[in-house]
Amino acid sequence: MRELTVEDLRDLARGAAVLGTGGGGDPYVGRLLAERQLNLGKRIRVISPEELDDDALVIPTSMMGAPTVIVEKLPSGEENVTALRALEERLGKKAAATMPVECGGVNSMIPLYMAARMDLPVVDADGMGRAFPELQMETFHVYGVPGTPMAVADEKGDATVVESGSNHRMEWLARGVTIRMGGASYVSMYPMSAAEVRRTAIPGTLGLAQGIGATLRQAREQHRDPFDALTEMLASTIYSHGSVLFRGKVIDVERRTVEGFARGRARLEPFEGDDWLELTFQNEYLVARSEGETRAVVPDLICTLDTETGEPITTEALRYGQRITVYTISTPEIMRTPAALDTFGPAAFGLPDRYVPVEEMPASA
Amino acid sequence: MRELTVEDLRDLARGAAVLGTGGGGDPYVGRLLAERQLNLGKRIRVISPEELDDDALVIPTSMMGAPTVIVEKLPSGEENVTALRALEERLGKKAAATMPVECGGVNSMIPLYMAARMDLPVVDADGMGRAFPELQMETFHVYGVPGTPMAVADEKGDATVVESGSNHRMEWLARGVTIRMGGASYVSMYPMSAAEVRRTAIPGTLGLAQGIGATLRQAREQHRDPFDALTEMLASTIYSHGSVLFRGKVIDVERRTVEGFARGRARLEPFEGDDWLELTFQNEYLVARSEGETRAVVPDLICTLDTETGEPITTEALRYGQRITVYTISTPEIMRTPAALDTFGPAAFGLPDRYVPVEEMPASA
Repeated sequence: MRELTVEDLRDLARGAAVLGTGGGGDPYVGRLLAERQLNLGKRIRVISPEELDDDALVIPTSMMGAPTVIVEKLPSGEENVTALRALEERLGKKAAATMPVECGGVNSMIPLYMAARMDLPVVDADGMGRAFPELQMETFHVYGVPGTPMAVADEKGDATVVESGSNHRMEWLARGVTIRMGGASYVSMYPMSAAEVRRTAIPGTLGLAQGIGATLRQAREQHRDPFDALTEMLASTIYSHGSVLFRGKVIDVERRTVEGFARGRARLEPFEGDDWLELTFQNEYLVARSEGETRAVVPDLICTLDTETGEPITTEALRYGQRITVYTISTPEIMRTPAALDTFGPAAFGLPDRYVPVEEMPASA
Repeated sequence: MRELTVEDLRDLARGAAVLGTGGGGDPYVGRLLAERQLNLGKRIRVISPEELDDDALVIPTSMMGAPTVIVEKLPSGEENVTALRALEERLGKKAAATMPVECGGVNSMIPLYMAARMDLPVVDADGMGRAFPELQMETFHVYGVPGTPMAVADEKGDATVVESGSNHRMEWLARGVTIRMGGASYVSMYPMSAAEVRRTAIPGTLGLAQGIGATLRQAREQHRDPFDALTEMLASTIYSHGSVLFRGKVIDVERRTVEGFARGRARLEPFEGDDWLELTFQNEYLVARSEGETRAVVPDLICTLDTETGEPITTEALRYGQRITVYTISTPEIMRTPAALDTFGPAAFGLPDRYVPVEEMPASA
């Protein structure tokens, strides 16, 4: 068990924005909620899955919706309390710990806030190893954990409990509720035992996010190239390959909120050479293509960062003329099995691209 | 307590189609489900609210969605079982009886089917006294019964339980779920004690529907004008004023499914004279206007029936050239209080028309 400080939270938020791969919702709002709890004297206790008894109940907490909505419809913090309580009531059992369902974006922060608010430990692990736009895109789902019962709550104190034999149907129904709740909701789902967490979760991803954030901060303090520092740091983790894919200027952004998702594409012009890069996103970046060739594709991570400062930039913050660096990160093996690729590989997003690990992609022409 | 026969069911379905005021969903499908139960040897026991102990739990059952969808997406009958069980589980208590939430259209039949299927008595009363398109348009709501917890289920065995402090929010969220379930769902809501039924429900409306259906059948058997017979029968009920508003031919129908509702208007040309009649509907007929004048408006009933046979015609069955009679029926006093008109009077539907009881409307020019 370790306790997070305000500085840890800031590092973790910065790293989570990188792992948000352009989406995930800006962690800023979630960080403020969590920091406020620390200022009130509450504690954020991070534990490893091994610290829990086999049958301890872990209830993940997160928000759901389009990142473009979250930044305009700020949570009070009580929404997730409503969702957690509704699910505990449905299960007739209290949570022994909470956990992120995704370690990228705002959803890395929500469980930290909830840990402090509800005086629960938070497990250092998650089910996406990054951010993904849909609820069944979880290693929990890939390896057989039911997502339901799932509770969906809003700022009015309303809640719905979804029951389904299928995690795809859960996503479909909960998305419908979320749209009716104004495009953003707060949820508890994939309730599971600590034994199931150990079997199905991606371990250490809160620590990973914190490490990424600290690395970027230190590189800036030391006037070091942030991307070199990041690549060096990642080499010793299960996300072993980090590298710069592209440097250039934003020349076009197309963005719309459809069916509860932020969908669109961004086009980048290189500082040198002629080949544009096009990034396609559904909340998160799905694929980077250049001259019709796939350069990186889900589930590998495609991140956009400010070229000077290394600060991550989300799709909703992309603007014409920005100078950005596109940085890719390989995903761990648990996210690259055939079953995992069925769930969050290119075909799961309707993309025609074949999955090739980003570190094996042919170098740019 | 009385038991319904197959002939009773047919009369009741015919009468419920009249009380469906053009919407409510064709009772035909629900009647088949209920008849099948009788053929399997099951019983439909109808009781009055007075036959239950004060604290007996009554759980209404119904379907939700656009009538245009129901006729194409037939229920298996298990959807409502899923919904009832989900709500019983949430409440930790079994239903002592079921009840209609509306006595017009398919929702008069669903509780009869459920009574047989689950071996529960069905209470002879409802909360709409006709059909209305939205879930808060209930005397239960008007007189303070919470609609939630509410269970919404589909043919895949999926269910959601909606919790809200507001019946309007319940309608909004459950409609979102229903849209995701394909435009039709099966629900249990407004769970209440028998004492609350006696305080808030419109009494005897299953009997009323059966009486209307029997009257139309007998008129046909006796070669009597069905509308005269109906007016005579209604005079002795709490729906005291029934009368013919218009006779004519359908010359235009505009119909679209929007946000889970069937919305549109129908235009009728008179057999004699020049003044057209226009009927506006949201699932059900809301208002009849002629030459810009309101001729009848919600919550009073506007019904369309075949001019020759007196068979009720729903909006989705309206066709160019049909010869129809528009028949209006006054609503009982419990549906005309200021609180009731706030909930299902013209303004509740965004209509500019002032509510004037249909029996006090100026006669046609």
